[in-house]
Amino acid sequence: MSGTPHTRAQIPAGAQCFVGDEARRRRAIEARVLSVFEGWDYEEIIPPLFDYADVFGDGALASKTYSFVGRDGSLLALRPDFTSLLAKIAAGRLLDRPAPMRLYYSGEVLRYEPPQAGRQSELHQMGLEHLGGAGRAADAEVLAIAAECLDALDARGCVLALGHVGVFGGLAAAAGLAGDDVETLRERISRRDPEGVASALRRRGIGGAIADGLVGLTTLGAGPEALDQAVERFACCPPAARAVGEVAEVVAALAAAGLGPRLALDLGEVRGLDYYTGLVFRIYAPDLGFEVGAGGRYDALLARFGRPMPAVGFMLGLDRLERLLERQGRLGAAPPPAAEVVSGPSLGAALSRARERRAQGARVRLGGS
Amino acid sequence: MSGTPHTRAQIPAGAQCFVGDEARRRRAIEARVLSVFEGWDYEEIIPPLFDYADVFGDGALASKTYSFVGRDGSLLALRPDFTSLLAKIAAGRLLDRPAPMRLYYSGEVLRYEPPQAGRQSELHQMGLEHLGGAGRAADAEVLAIAAECLDALDARGCVLALGHVGVFGGLAAAAGLAGDDVETLRERISRRDPEGVASALRRRGIGGAIADGLVGLTTLGAGPEALDQAVERFACCPPAARAVGEVAEVVAALAAAGLGPRLALDLGEVRGLDYYTGLVFRIYAPDLGFEVGAGGRYDALLARFGRPMPAVGFMLGLDRLERLLERQGRLGAAPPPAAEVVSGPSLGAALSRARERRAQGARVRLGGS
Repeated sequence: MSGTPHTRAQIPAGAQCFVGDEARRRRAIEARVLSVFEGWDYEEIIPPLFDYADVFGDGALASKTYSFVGRDGSLLALRPDFTSLLAKIAAGRLLDRPAPMRLYYSGEVLRYEPPQAGRQSELHQMGLEHLGGAGRAADAEVLAIAAECLDALDARGCVLALGHVGVFGGLAAAAGLAGDDVETLRERISRRDPEGVASALRRRGIGGAIADGLVGLTTLGAGPEALDQAVERFACCPPAARAVGEVAEVVAALAAAGLGPRLALDLGEVRGLDYYTGLVFRIYAPDLGFEVGAGGRYDALLARFGRPMPAVGFMLGLDRLERLLERQGRLGAAPPPAAEVVSGPSLGAALSRARERRAQGARVRLGGS
Repeated sequence: MSGTPHTRAQIPAGAQCFVGDEARRRRAIEARVLSVFEGWDYEEIIPPLFDYADVFGDGALASKTYSFVGRDGSLLALRPDFTSLLAKIAAGRLLDRPAPMRLYYSGEVLRYEPPQAGRQSELHQMGLEHLGGAGRAADAEVLAIAAECLDALDARGCVLALGHVGVFGGLAAAAGLAGDDVETLRERISRRDPEGVASALRRRGIGGAIADGLVGLTTLGAGPEALDQAVERFACCPPAARAVGEVAEVVAALAAAGLGPRLALDLGEVRGLDYYTGLVFRIYAPDLGFEVGAGGRYDALLARFGRPMPAVGFMLGLDRLERLLERQGRLGAAPPPAAEVVSGPSLGAALSRARERRAQGARVRLGGS
């Protein structure tokens, strides 16, 4: 067999392995998050670990998908995320269920990551999908649930940063941009480079209010005043203005529910976001350098599986939450007290005693007889 | 792409999908079993979903393994069982830990099953491994734990059927049999065909006490008297007699601990049992037609990973336990009461009220605003 030589004891790069306390901490985090999901009346789905490769589409994840050939010759893929699987199940097995459906999941996804990147190939994601509900109410609900999960974990300082794919998308379309030009702008806006954006637009002969709007994406703030600025700045572009209006409506509802301090605005969010069609958000701790979760609205995905309906959801990464809580010193799950060592004059006597103590609720360790 | 045509909503044959109550029942079964494992001071391992294909060896499972090529060219395989993975981890990552180690796992395995067999390709297994402990004490301990799991699930009438690979193995070796001759005997003994066994032995010119012993494997009973009969019958073959002695010692300890009624003997157990080297057992409900779990001693496996030590373990199949409990009407996990529908004059007001009720411990469903 070719491939990098490995020792008997080595596990493949990126594969997970958790032992004892590590596993206990992960179970504790999972239990708290799922309890919040249940508390908002979401139902668990345990979907397959693999499916036909075409389920996972041709988005950014396609190149990260582990695929293999099933015994009937079909091309199968290990799930790289859950959202597509849940959309498919909602459109297939749950076809008879009326909308809205509230569904959640918790489990591993598998993604190819180049070995040198040092990233995990196996990740544990917990998330939910709100399918077929009213737009802004569902958006606000899933954000409120995400915030409650962070509280339930006692994670400090986490922020929900809200954007909307219609802001950049609307402006880029109004400017008549497509293909590589869009990618150039994305890249420059995401590194907050107003000069770079302006010069790219000049090269294409794009000026006026739309150009100002695109340049302005690099300087919009994260505070609530950014909404007012954006309304003004994007008045020239109705789709972008509508997108800002949607965000404003959700922010107002969340603020009324006491979640204002959790929110930040990120209307300059322009990353390639796969299937998202509306509100998008990321969950991060400002001093941490990585996000612990993300979500958004994807109103076009279910149509791919034959049951068109609006949808919004988010996921939390268990691995990243664990790192966050560890850095914050908030990994609460203490190891249980030492088990009671039980022994006896014979194996039968020791076992008998151990069973008695178990029936009385003790944790036991069978010692030498 | 070739392969059997499939609709958008279809999942591949043998893939799992559980929704709502089904997922809740599975979580409830898992929680009870893992609580018993924890109660006997076993520690959880969350191993990788895939590993180098050579970890899973060349046993009966090799032909059922889904393999794929990693990005560095290595041949990888989705885990078809947990025991090899845990042995590898015990010999590698846990090399510094003193024996005995008590480890458990719970998760999915993936096995190729021909589509027409109607079997699941994804199975959820829960099990434990007792590594590096004293032989009979560890054997008796894991059997006592298996019995407690069945009690914790309120499963009725389940039996632990005990055999030992050294009985048939010792007799076959004493008869000088190998290769196909052994397979022929296995097959005839397993269908309880004394005439077939006798004629196969005659053809090979094997007679006397060893031949009588092999023929006798087809007629040994399941009750405790079978042990005495076996001791007498296998006196001619010290390895087989020693194997029976080991089983007798374990049975005596379990009987002393009140587990006698749970036990059956199956000294004629001759199935090809992969890595097992000593005591083996199956867990089944007599009226059910399938086993819900199995285990045994595998004293040679850890040496493959460079840390020779004795080992014994077992696993319970979550899918089969669920079917058993369903047939017995003992799937206790009732759906939770309906969530409280919360609404309000505005989205903000409804969300605010929902968050209040959540803080008070209610399960809520956000209704129309």
